[in-house]
Amino acid sequence: MPLMPFTDSMFLLVESREHPMHVGGLQLFQTPEGADHTWLRSLREDLVKNTDVRRLFRQRVARPVNTLGYAAWARDEDLDLDYHFRHSALPYPGRVRELLELTSRWHSTLLDRHRPLWEIHLVEGLQDGRFAMYSKVHHALMDGVSALRHLQGTLSDDPDDRSCPPPWGSRQVSRGKPPRNARSLLRVGTSSLKQIAGMAPAAAKVAREAFREHTLLLPMQAPKTIFNVPIGGARRFAAQSWPLGRVRAIATATGTSRNDVVLAMCSGALRDYLIEQRALPDAPLVAMVPVSMRKPTDTGEAAGNQIGAVLCNLGTDKPDPASRLMTIHQSMREAKRIFKELTPLQALLLSGINVAPLGISPVPGFVNNTRPPFNLVISNVPGPRKQMYWNGAKLDGIYPASVLLDGQALNITLTNNGDNLDFGITGCRRSVPHLQRILTHLDTALEELEFAAR
Amino acid sequence: MPLMPFTDSMFLLVESREHPMHVGGLQLFQTPEGADHTWLRSLREDLVKNTDVRRLFRQRVARPVNTLGYAAWARDEDLDLDYHFRHSALPYPGRVRELLELTSRWHSTLLDRHRPLWEIHLVEGLQDGRFAMYSKVHHALMDGVSALRHLQGTLSDDPDDRSCPPPWGSRQVSRGKPPRNARSLLRVGTSSLKQIAGMAPAAAKVAREAFREHTLLLPMQAPKTIFNVPIGGARRFAAQSWPLGRVRAIATATGTSRNDVVLAMCSGALRDYLIEQRALPDAPLVAMVPVSMRKPTDTGEAAGNQIGAVLCNLGTDKPDPASRLMTIHQSMREAKRIFKELTPLQALLLSGINVAPLGISPVPGFVNNTRPPFNLVISNVPGPRKQMYWNGAKLDGIYPASVLLDGQALNITLTNNGDNLDFGITGCRRSVPHLQRILTHLDTALEELEFAAR
Repeated sequence: MPLMPFTDSMFLLVESREHPMHVGGLQLFQTPEGADHTWLRSLREDLVKNTDVRRLFRQRVARPVNTLGYAAWARDEDLDLDYHFRHSALPYPGRVRELLELTSRWHSTLLDRHRPLWEIHLVEGLQDGRFAMYSKVHHALMDGVSALRHLQGTLSDDPDDRSCPPPWGSRQVSRGKPPRNARSLLRVGTSSLKQIAGMAPAAAKVAREAFREHTLLLPMQAPKTIFNVPIGGARRFAAQSWPLGRVRAIATATGTSRNDVVLAMCSGALRDYLIEQRALPDAPLVAMVPVSMRKPTDTGEAAGNQIGAVLCNLGTDKPDPASRLMTIHQSMREAKRIFKELTPLQALLLSGINVAPLGISPVPGFVNNTRPPFNLVISNVPGPRKQMYWNGAKLDGIYPASVLLDGQALNITLTNNGDNLDFGITGCRRSVPHLQRILTHLDTALEELEFAAR
Repeated sequence: MPLMPFTDSMFLLVESREHPMHVGGLQLFQTPEGADHTWLRSLREDLVKNTDVRRLFRQRVARPVNTLGYAAWARDEDLDLDYHFRHSALPYPGRVRELLELTSRWHSTLLDRHRPLWEIHLVEGLQDGRFAMYSKVHHALMDGVSALRHLQGTLSDDPDDRSCPPPWGSRQVSRGKPPRNARSLLRVGTSSLKQIAGMAPAAAKVAREAFREHTLLLPMQAPKTIFNVPIGGARRFAAQSWPLGRVRAIATATGTSRNDVVLAMCSGALRDYLIEQRALPDAPLVAMVPVSMRKPTDTGEAAGNQIGAVLCNLGTDKPDPASRLMTIHQSMREAKRIFKELTPLQALLLSGINVAPLGISPVPGFVNNTRPPFNLVISNVPGPRKQMYWNGAKLDGIYPASVLLDGQALNITLTNNGDNLDFGITGCRRSVPHLQRILTHLDTALEELEFAAR
């Protein structure tokens, strides 16, 4: 039984019903032309026969219930793919709304620790004939960026390619590229992490220490908002795509970056949402924005140390969309990097979608007694540049669903997908009412920015 | 935090991925006349507003992960009904087959120990317009008979009654009857159980001791069959109704009891199934049949001690249906009671649907090295005598789904429901291939018995 590195077990130790530690993704596909009602079922049945399972997808917690702490991974010799890969359907009327409801439900429940920590759900019954796939992987196995990259690895840019593997499988090595290591980031710095591995029982304390110094040096003061409260276990998930071209046009016209425009969309939406909830603070909201510090020349092993984050003034106090965009642009240019040189643990905690500061969250009382270091994470993670397909099914959208923590009840993560930007919004159901309203407000914010850029 | 009696914690202690310890039930309803596509959703939304939750349905394990053993129940102050009461749909084509597949999946997964140990699923999308409700309750909360009785308590024999409570609620006391205590059986003998409560860590041993003396005295030798093997965690569930009148007619014509005829149906079906699987043993299969030892005059407190079980020679070695029925009739009349005077623990273990001898199962090596004490449990539990309704929806069927254990990979539990007998067949997916074939064989067996009775 291989011992589990602390960087894995940490995510199991801090997990609770209120703080599930899995990352998720919702993919939306067009059924291939000529496919009938039985197509999805047949595809599933074919894929389930593929028992060439990647190591990570066979890995389970060795003693899921009876031990204090989780010291080891075990190989699951009796993997039940029918359990992990499920076929479901939407209730009437089968709108995207029903799909998001179902996704919210799945994203709220804890993975079964008696089995390898992943689930994938195929969903039919969308009224427009499309189908969806919701995937859920424990953070102890894979972080969000790795999970997304891994999923992309199973897709193809060839609409006629019918050899796409199931998500637990590997593509036959045939394209000259070595298969990507889904955990390259986690593997970095394993040796230095061993230094703290012995401290596992004090997980929360260790994680807090990792951040303490920096949280005291935060360069901005975020106001307290309804998003910065202790959270419950239930989630709401909302998702929508917008054309990348619209964002690009605003960036060009205003001399800002695409990321600035995305942040301004979020800013406008958050402002409108908070006004609607009668909860807009006077001071501007502060977003934590993960950024890659990697220079184009860097490769390989050192990558893990190159992820950082900046704090961005979202300018939500300003009613004018153009002023908000300029505030954001300036704030991002000044780039107040919180963490100049990240330790491997910090890099891990900040990696990809799950940027929430574990070290801050599980400390009782912290959330209520101090001002939040930032109001929410807005994360833009790399997605496929081309139009992708999965066994002939055109990928319409790929929406990341994130981890929430106490004090961080809302997360916006987006990814580029061909010609679109796909937004996934994860919220605590108790703290963030009418989450789906944020989608409407994002749409309005984009229109306002277009108008302002004319 | 109230301490958990050993009789509760035992079911949590022996639970594993391969041995989920919940009982289930599938109910099939006709949508009321005039109800449209939105009816079920509206009903669910109305019911979720009913937060008058019975104590048992708020009860959760106090420390679900971090302790060795489960010493206490806690009250869930933040019960999330949206989590426990779910709305689902069947994939195309929405036959009963798809419903049974979904039920099998739900019956295979462990309940989340971070929450009160129950789930209820409303299912739409049956092609004939009906809907279903699958309920799942941990044995630590309720045994099968209690669960079934509890469900019945939420139904009404009045098609116009629209005030039926949700399964977690209580009917307003209005009918002159005191509300039934769903745990009456478990409450009996609590004082004597306290004697062994201190022995909790040695759960398996204690439970085995409870049965040891008797298993040595078993009056019949059961052959080894494909059903008497170690089991995996996945289940298959099959269900079907037959008219009670057909069974009654055979019983009357042959001078046997209805239960004899039911056992003969099972016997014929098992024989055909095992022939098909090339696995019919020479010696006849032996069923354990739970029976009520309660005299009509007994009431109240003493009830827990009045449940017993008899071993029945199923006569599966005989090709002639009439001879099988006579063998069963005779065997049941001789009624070799295994347990003359049950201790409260034994009564609990044998109670209702879940008659599987816990004490035998979790002992490593036992299953493979000895002959089974019996081949399967066939249990006939009391159901509603009248046609019942739930908020105007006519109850078409009520099918019990049982607990399986090592050495007992198949369970047949039936219940009467108005004019029908509703069979629920639970099997280990790995050990009992093509479980649904047993339904066909039951149908054939009934026809053969009718022919023989002419």
